[in-house]
Amino acid sequence: MSGDGTSPKILLTEAERNSITFNGDGLVPAIAQDATTMEVLMLAWMSRESLDMTLAEGRMVYWSRSRSELWRKGDTSGDHQDVLEARYDCDGDTLLFLVHQHGRGACHTGERTCFFRRIGDDA
Amino acid sequence: MSGDGTSPKILLTEAERNSITFNGDGLVPAIAQDATTMEVLMLAWMSRESLDMTLAEGRMVYWSRSRSELWRKGDTSGDHQDVLEARYDCDGDTLLFLVHQHGRGACHTGERTCFFRRIGDDA
Repeated sequence: MSGDGTSPKILLTEAERNSITFNGDGLVPAIAQDATTMEVLMLAWMSRESLDMTLAEGRMVYWSRSRSELWRKGDTSGDHQDVLEARYDCDGDTLLFLVHQHGRGACHTGERTCFFRRIGDDA
Repeated sequence: MSGDGTSPKILLTEAERNSITFNGDGLVPAIAQDATTMEVLMLAWMSRESLDMTLAEGRMVYWSRSRSELWRKGDTSGDHQDVLEARYDCDGDTLLFLVHQHGRGACHTGERTCFFRRIGDDA
């Protein structure tokens, strides 16, 4: 299944869609959490279109704020993320995805998680 | 220890401080994750001052965007969060805190996590 539009992996109802609030730039923060290790891997942003693609394909698609373009995570690096579960918070202004992380990891540095640095370690 | 300024719980070095990027509103997103269950509890925002208070006290202090004021989580509800570990991501524009959640939970609805709703459950 690669998001051919006929059978979305996860169905977003109209009520759910209306519960999700995008900010002034049309974006909502999306947290990716490893479904196996439960590590928080990264936070990036989704536009309405990238959220729809993510749910349709069952694969994380972000909006790159630095490049101002859709970012199908892993298309270049191979480190893509399959979606096992999609959640939204009480205010509807943050998304949480439980994912299966492919490749080396989530981070462009080669680390498994983007949160590899701990405050106080340099003290 | 209640943040009397003499002995911060977690020491933020100058280099670390310079690695953290606040957005145009002077805020950075902060994810709170339960250190025991590894559940993602909530995402809220921190100002530089609330981050300093959080690290000094070892207790989560956010910036409330709706009330435009410092928000010492749990002062009203009792549901405060002790910080066990503070992390920052590769870009320095998101913080991750491993916390011990007190009280009923993180969410104002009474749920343990703010991410209690799953997309597709209503389908």
